[in-house]
Amino acid sequence: MTQKTYDTHREHVAGRADVADTPELVAYYQALERLQTGALWTVANKIEPWQPRSDSVPVLWRYRELREHVLRSVALVTPEKAGRRVIYLDNPGRREMAAAVGWLYSGLQVMHPGERASAHAHSSSALRFIMEGRGAYTIVDGHKMTLGTNDFVLTPNGTWHEHGVEADGLPCIWQDGLDIPLVNALEAGFYAVHPDLQQAVGYPVDDAADIWGAAGLRPQNVNWNKPYSPLFKYQWAPTYEALLRLSKAREDNPFDGALMHYTNPASGGHVMATTGASMQLLRPGFAGKAHRHTGSFLYQVAKGSGHSVINGLRFDWQERDIFCVPSWAWHEHANASQTEDACLFCFNDLPVMEKLGLYREEALIDNGGHQPVLPPA
Amino acid sequence: MTQKTYDTHREHVAGRADVADTPELVAYYQALERLQTGALWTVANKIEPWQPRSDSVPVLWRYRELREHVLRSVALVTPEKAGRRVIYLDNPGRREMAAAVGWLYSGLQVMHPGERASAHAHSSSALRFIMEGRGAYTIVDGHKMTLGTNDFVLTPNGTWHEHGVEADGLPCIWQDGLDIPLVNALEAGFYAVHPDLQQAVGYPVDDAADIWGAAGLRPQNVNWNKPYSPLFKYQWAPTYEALLRLSKAREDNPFDGALMHYTNPASGGHVMATTGASMQLLRPGFAGKAHRHTGSFLYQVAKGSGHSVINGLRFDWQERDIFCVPSWAWHEHANASQTEDACLFCFNDLPVMEKLGLYREEALIDNGGHQPVLPPA
Amino acid sequence: MTQKTYDTHREHVAGRADVADTPELVAYYQALERLQTGALWTVANKIEPWQPRSDSVPVLWRYRELREHVLRSVALVTPEKAGRRVIYLDNPGRREMAAAVGWLYSGLQVMHPGERASAHAHSSSALRFIMEGRGAYTIVDGHKMTLGTNDFVLTPNGTWHEHGVEADGLPCIWQDGLDIPLVNALEAGFYAVHPDLQQAVGYPVDDAADIWGAAGLRPQNVNWNKPYSPLFKYQWAPTYEALLRLSKAREDNPFDGALMHYTNPASGGHVMATTGASMQLLRPGFAGKAHRHTGSFLYQVAKGSGHSVINGLRFDWQERDIFCVPSWAWHEHANASQTEDACLFCFNDLPVMEKLGLYREEALIDNGGHQPVLPPA
Amino acid sequence: MTQKTYDTHREHVAGRADVADTPELVAYYQALERLQTGALWTVANKIEPWQPRSDSVPVLWRYRELREHVLRSVALVTPEKAGRRVIYLDNPGRREMAAAVGWLYSGLQVMHPGERASAHAHSSSALRFIMEGRGAYTIVDGHKMTLGTNDFVLTPNGTWHEHGVEADGLPCIWQDGLDIPLVNALEAGFYAVHPDLQQAVGYPVDDAADIWGAAGLRPQNVNWNKPYSPLFKYQWAPTYEALLRLSKAREDNPFDGALMHYTNPASGGHVMATTGASMQLLRPGFAGKAHRHTGSFLYQVAKGSGHSVINGLRFDWQERDIFCVPSWAWHEHANASQTEDACLFCFNDLPVMEKLGLYREEALIDNGGHQPVLPPA
Repeated sequence: MTQKTYDTHREHVAGRADVADTPELVAYYQALERLQTGALWTVANKIEPWQPRSDSVPVLWRYRELREHVLRSVALVTPEKAGRRVIYLDNPGRREMAAAVGWLYSGLQVMHPGERASAHAHSSSALRFIMEGRGAYTIVDGHKMTLGTNDFVLTPNGTWHEHGVEADGLPCIWQDGLDIPLVNALEAGFYAVHPDLQQAVGYPVDDAADIWGAAGLRPQNVNWNKPYSPLFKYQWAPTYEALLRLSKAREDNPFDGALMHYTNPASGGHVMATTGASMQLLRPGFAGKAHRHTGSFLYQVAKGSGHSVINGLRFDWQERDIFCVPSWAWHEHANASQTEDACLFCFNDLPVMEKLGLYREEALIDNGGHQPVLPPA
Repeated sequence: MTQKTYDTHREHVAGRADVADTPELVAYYQALERLQTGALWTVANKIEPWQPRSDSVPVLWRYRELREHVLRSVALVTPEKAGRRVIYLDNPGRREMAAAVGWLYSGLQVMHPGERASAHAHSSSALRFIMEGRGAYTIVDGHKMTLGTNDFVLTPNGTWHEHGVEADGLPCIWQDGLDIPLVNALEAGFYAVHPDLQQAVGYPVDDAADIWGAAGLRPQNVNWNKPYSPLFKYQWAPTYEALLRLSKAREDNPFDGALMHYTNPASGGHVMATTGASMQLLRPGFAGKAHRHTGSFLYQVAKGSGHSVINGLRFDWQERDIFCVPSWAWHEHANASQTEDACLFCFNDLPVMEKLGLYREEALIDNGGHQPVLPPA
Repeated sequence: MTQKTYDTHREHVAGRADVADTPELVAYYQALERLQTGALWTVANKIEPWQPRSDSVPVLWRYRELREHVLRSVALVTPEKAGRRVIYLDNPGRREMAAAVGWLYSGLQVMHPGERASAHAHSSSALRFIMEGRGAYTIVDGHKMTLGTNDFVLTPNGTWHEHGVEADGLPCIWQDGLDIPLVNALEAGFYAVHPDLQQAVGYPVDDAADIWGAAGLRPQNVNWNKPYSPLFKYQWAPTYEALLRLSKAREDNPFDGALMHYTNPASGGHVMATTGASMQLLRPGFAGKAHRHTGSFLYQVAKGSGHSVINGLRFDWQERDIFCVPSWAWHEHANASQTEDACLFCFNDLPVMEKLGLYREEALIDNGGHQPVLPPA
Repeated sequence: MTQKTYDTHREHVAGRADVADTPELVAYYQALERLQTGALWTVANKIEPWQPRSDSVPVLWRYRELREHVLRSVALVTPEKAGRRVIYLDNPGRREMAAAVGWLYSGLQVMHPGERASAHAHSSSALRFIMEGRGAYTIVDGHKMTLGTNDFVLTPNGTWHEHGVEADGLPCIWQDGLDIPLVNALEAGFYAVHPDLQQAVGYPVDDAADIWGAAGLRPQNVNWNKPYSPLFKYQWAPTYEALLRLSKAREDNPFDGALMHYTNPASGGHVMATTGASMQLLRPGFAGKAHRHTGSFLYQVAKGSGHSVINGLRFDWQERDIFCVPSWAWHEHANASQTEDACLFCFNDLPVMEKLGLYREEALIDNGGHQPVLPPA
């Protein structure tokens, strides 16, 4: 029988725990365990690391590999039985919580023309990013929104919501993004199925965009103080156009090119209480420098192709591919084309990092700001 | 010799001052005056009215009457001598502070092609609303903005700013709006002439719109915490389009039709610390109900024709006319046309009322919500 | 018959108005007047001064001169007839609005044992600072508070409030401070007499202090989001003790010695939406340096004696004297004693200046930071 | 060899996943796994529970059992070797992250007279609650604070801090409370040892209390906008006195008696960005009703004795005992004495729940608001 050891985290550094096991100490530790306690110095160096250590690993999910599997789910399960037909992204380091990276969940969902999922509400903040198809729509608290490729829609914490595809549409695939792992970790998740299974549409279609979708204008007599954006839907065409204009008006950010955060127009802040999102444009030939920061980020390639180097590993991506950058991982992005721009959609937990005072970032200084790339495993 | 009386504000109401002059009291009052004091009960009912009493009177300034005078100033004074060639609106009740209404100043300024005013900065918050011409521009802290009819631009408290008209433009007239009377009243006004008399343009023309002008998008790495909007310029075309969409998506407000407040996209709040602005659309046939509220409001007719009833007086207005609604004055607006919409631009001191906890409003209940109209004087 | 002149504000400075009257221009100006307009260049230099010009003049009101007059009002008028028996401070530069300084009203009120004023509410924010007597109390929205010398109590905008003196007390005199002139100027004042003329007391006496009066503690389940402090009463003893502690823990501020702002414990901000208040301690021998800032300030000497130099004029003050510092006036304070400290209570319009972005300050650099004192007039 | 099953989370409820394994589906699932993906319907019901399920279990740590072990650590390890001599509380459901409950870490630390731990800084927000001894002190960013029993001190995220006991003191034991598990989970933890191992004291001892410790008073010229309280230390005597006053002024809260949240006096909010704390008084005979809410709470008995029922289990506690209430666990507290009051100190993650929009609570309706108590296991 192997005896349990307690001194596996020792560090020979002033101010850190450095206590070797002795028979007397081991007996002491065992007595503590019986009282549902432990000696801090046996775990201190582990639970107080010098800098963040992410359990997540960088992953690239290639759409050309996933797409057929997503489509195949239509034949395998009905929406009624499955709830939602979703293939979720399962980071090898985060299997237990079904996370794509950090505390972010993501999956690819398929729906056929005429299908409509049941309405529900949950404590998780959710978003969808449309990847292909025609006729997709989402209903949030009675507001129906039509959705095209690269559009992005919110279904925030506590709202009734449901998704569907119009009968005259085409099969649609979209990416779901949620903070399910975070809400579960915080032991704060509630889930409810709508009593009628489906919501009535109570407003003109796309009314949120008509009411809140003009820059620098706020409708009279709409007092919005919920912690999420009343705009709900963010369309691709004006977003892309805005990035082109930004890119013309300002120099590139050395790490991110031209990047816009999606915002809540009523406050100027993030789109939801726990989840941020952004779209960035890498102009032709852009080769960004490396930096790292706290927070977890999941990217989808909305346009173009290129590569990212994440903690020294190179990932080549094409349109619709998805990849993640774990917390405090060095990362840099490059556009593969000298003639076409590339765009990356991203969602993240920046609001959590910021509100809790935990955001920190660092630029790579050495090597001209670029990481040495490790050989493939 | 007439003796001064002190009992002109008596009210025979419990809780109000009701003290008649006596020789003994008058002697007492005179003794108080020598000590730079007074007896509150001689002025209490005056300084604590039951409800607001505005010194301002409702006025309609007709553009067809003013325009020739504005244009004539070009022949009469040079910009160098005049500083700015402006005809200001002088409310008969507010002559002493050169106010159009309440604590708001406004004037009509003319500038010829190739002219450029000297750059200055002041504590007042200012805006311009373009009425006619071609080639107008404003430079704010090095950002140059081009301006067309019904566009609106900010030159906030503390910013260097200057106006001009391109050499290949047409004579331009615009409305200036400032809180000069308020800042003077608060004894907080500073004024500075730019050391070089003119600013250098330090950014791409209209870059603010490229950076901040997309709904629901915020540029990365631009931390804006100044108390005014970084957008500076608000264009007519998207504003009018937004009003049409709002008008389609929601029922009219009974008093204002479809109204949008111009906002600071970084905060969702008013465009400047002391000054708000809005544009509203009265659809064909709209006949609004009457209400009243605290705060002073100055309107310019951006489109169409109609009338407003203000404290029982009817004012018929056409495009480019300007009229004011004093604090706590009943007012209602109507579109004269059954086929064309009408639009009213407005600037006001709502931010002051809101921040100081002094905003209050009341709807007219009687007479179907409409005021009896008094016969013209 | 003298002809009106229009060119009295000319300045021979680039960027300023400098237009001489001519017969043609005068005719033009008269035409403009008929249209309720004017030429900006005739008033621009007046309404856009280089720096603030206060209409208020520095005044010292000596309590030994005022006290007998205040007490005499008891014999002259009843509370029923007078509403309140108050002698108000009437700044020679602000007679028209009955202001002590700037937009601040202040008066000395007397009440005899057993008297109780009628309850009312108004849009003005009010405070009382107790000067002498025993048994004074104030009731605010049903909360009764007992008051001793140098205590200070709020009766904010919109609250029902009334004052009285217990039957077994002594005649009380206190200073009232209100923003009546500001609220009138903003044309936003409402006044109401309580329907029952007197409020019922609905809570334990002094409950606000029991609930909110502990530093760094907030009662559970009391959601306070009104724009004024729920503490209402600020007592002298803990305030003086706090100043002594502050004075021990930190070096003096060169202008103000040890100064504490009274705050709203629910927000950390000013006590009311429009009105701030502070108490400061000048330690024995303190001779402050001069500075100036925007905003109007009215001081009462809560303890000790000394002098202030305001715009070059020296005012020697004793306990209970009141003096004002107008906006942008240079001022410096000195304690006359080498053995006793001196304390100054102050109320002001700092919240207005700060919220509207109009606060600015400047230290005097020359002459070791002290003003040359002008000879008495 | 057992084959892995994928259908263990099925629910036969409309809107929930209910898909049985088939050979075809299992093959499909295995293909998905190779692509680092999975089928959502195999885990959906697990990761989207109907309501929060806490991994933590209710635990009572009895001080009479722990104390000797804590003291014994002095003989077993030196501060130099151990870093800190702490026995941490190890919730049986949270062993992996060394958490006392949810994402909260806590431990009991002992220090002998003359000992002084090395200075460090970390991203975790920390607090200490003094349990026994004399002469304890903490230094935070150069501010030294002396500490007595039931005092509570902050060492926030990013501050340099260290603890010690004066040479003429007595052995001290205190409870540490930190959000280490949360910061680790969010992969945002940094740790640094002070370059000199010890800080210099740069201010008068206990200056923070002198500057910020007066209710309703804010020092001039101290602009504090850090996300934690500048007061740092909260003393027992004024806290207990405040609870007695609160208890006199207001009716008890049915669940918590008289409870005060410790606050940041500069903002009125929680003491640190991620961590809240409170002290509550259960008056003699108090028997609170049951409720449940999201968030994790760790209690220490600061005074008296009583019991709590947590999810149906009864825990009898005495002074210095510590117990936890996991997220969404029913709980009710009762004072055992009919003559003495009892006080509970608590720290929690309420700021996290509130900022992320995840706080929810529910009162127990049945059984007069009291839980049926389960028989001991």
